[in-house]
Amino acid sequence: MKLDKNLKICIVGLGLIGGSYAQALSDEGYEVGAVAKRRQTIDFALEKGWIAHGVTDVTAQYISKFDIVVFALYPHIFVEWIEKYQSCLKSGAVITDVTGVKGCVVYKIQEMLRDDVEFIAAHPMAGREKSGIEYASKEIFRQANYIVTPTAKNTATAVEICESLGETLGFKTVSRLSPEEHDEMIGFLSQLTHCIAVSLMTCRDTDGFEKYTGDSFRDLTRIANINDVMWSELFLLNKDELLKQMELFEAAFSKLKKAIETGDKDKMRSIMKLSTEHRKRFDKEGN
Amino acid sequence: MKLDKNLKICIVGLGLIGGSYAQALSDEGYEVGAVAKRRQTIDFALEKGWIAHGVTDVTAQYISKFDIVVFALYPHIFVEWIEKYQSCLKSGAVITDVTGVKGCVVYKIQEMLRDDVEFIAAHPMAGREKSGIEYASKEIFRQANYIVTPTAKNTATAVEICESLGETLGFKTVSRLSPEEHDEMIGFLSQLTHCIAVSLMTCRDTDGFEKYTGDSFRDLTRIANINDVMWSELFLLNKDELLKQMELFEAAFSKLKKAIETGDKDKMRSIMKLSTEHRKRFDKEGN
Repeated sequence: MKLDKNLKICIVGLGLIGGSYAQALSDEGYEVGAVAKRRQTIDFALEKGWIAHGVTDVTAQYISKFDIVVFALYPHIFVEWIEKYQSCLKSGAVITDVTGVKGCVVYKIQEMLRDDVEFIAAHPMAGREKSGIEYASKEIFRQANYIVTPTAKNTATAVEICESLGETLGFKTVSRLSPEEHDEMIGFLSQLTHCIAVSLMTCRDTDGFEKYTGDSFRDLTRIANINDVMWSELFLLNKDELLKQMELFEAAFSKLKKAIETGDKDKMRSIMKLSTEHRKRFDKEGN
Repeated sequence: MKLDKNLKICIVGLGLIGGSYAQALSDEGYEVGAVAKRRQTIDFALEKGWIAHGVTDVTAQYISKFDIVVFALYPHIFVEWIEKYQSCLKSGAVITDVTGVKGCVVYKIQEMLRDDVEFIAAHPMAGREKSGIEYASKEIFRQANYIVTPTAKNTATAVEICESLGETLGFKTVSRLSPEEHDEMIGFLSQLTHCIAVSLMTCRDTDGFEKYTGDSFRDLTRIANINDVMWSELFLLNKDELLKQMELFEAAFSKLKKAIETGDKDKMRSIMKLSTEHRKRFDKEGN
């Protein structure tokens, strides 16, 4: 179900994700406003037709226009924003976010928020190895998943609005997880994979190896090109869960290493067979 | 430089790689023969026009026709073949292979081989997650690297023939490494990456995760779909080098884990910056 066309939507933070939200929503005919740090970001979005208007300073006059406010900021800046400016929000507004970790953000924001405004968290699982509005594109949502993470504090209406937002943005799937389920899943599927890629890319001198590199090494290190500010923050916000996932991986890696060390071919083959069998479930268009 | 058109080439073993060699060479106008275990493999290749003729039994009458013999077999079968049938080879023939590890194969074969036949080893760094001639295609060589690994026993002529073979097959680059350099490089770029992918894919229950999976997890586990017979053999044949590379990776992974555990954001960021910088050298068409 798509969002009601009369809802006015504000995007706070026009980076890669915020910019892509603005584009997708404006293209669908919504009135989209924005708050960005720099005037040139606003101008870029205006020129592209991704926003109807935008500001660099937060004022109650501007923010109180909006029925939905999407925070596309680094987690700690999101928390600071709410502390400082939540008085500017319209009574009855629904606010949501794009943060890649949930447990440590959702309860905190819900706790500190005014009673007449509701925060329903969401994670658009889309991105690129580049940041900034100049790389924004609604196309990144097409093959991607959008996860809503409601808590006991959320109303059915807000959850519905948030899910409709995901559908309006054009995500392939919209689903629902608890903040804890989300963080476990993301700790494994996304954060652990980034830890692996970064470790592989930094574990030795690779000078001159580029001319012998095949697709497998390139595939495993694509995400080793990483936004260090954002990911170091996300890792620490999901520290306990991420460490658990890292330990599971270390144990499996040790087990395989032991089998190689001892020349236990049967063990190696049984691990590889399990791997092949598990991977089948993740096949998509033959890769 | 392409191979002399009059050379007759035999492919022993018509799997994914052997079949692709046969196709590439026949398309270039060479007379290509083959030895395969099963008649239907020969028939398939004949029907496709990838070979001019082929046999399922090795005879001196057939094998002695060929100037170049390419062994596209599992390493231990290659060694057995030479033991059993080397008397069938034409005097002056140049033999080569496609084996993914070198140190443990090259010296052994050169040691046991007749004096009037020369073995020059090569590694076509191409493949797929599928095996068998039905998946063969010369297209897999187009973006791939071909590495020749000569030893002190090799003549300049044989090295040249082997390099010309790589060029004739259509590889993007043809280069030269010692067997030891090759095995270190392959231990890192290819075998370690497969160990990582397999460990990631088997380290925990992932039931239901497929609907939340983004590209990063898919990229990291594409090669977790693995031929257990071939890779367990290759791992053991390069055991010492692979274990060294696994240890380097484990050390880097532990270092990052420690930084996360202790909340050392500066350390995390410096590792990530190094990772991003290293990855740049491996960029190819924007990925």
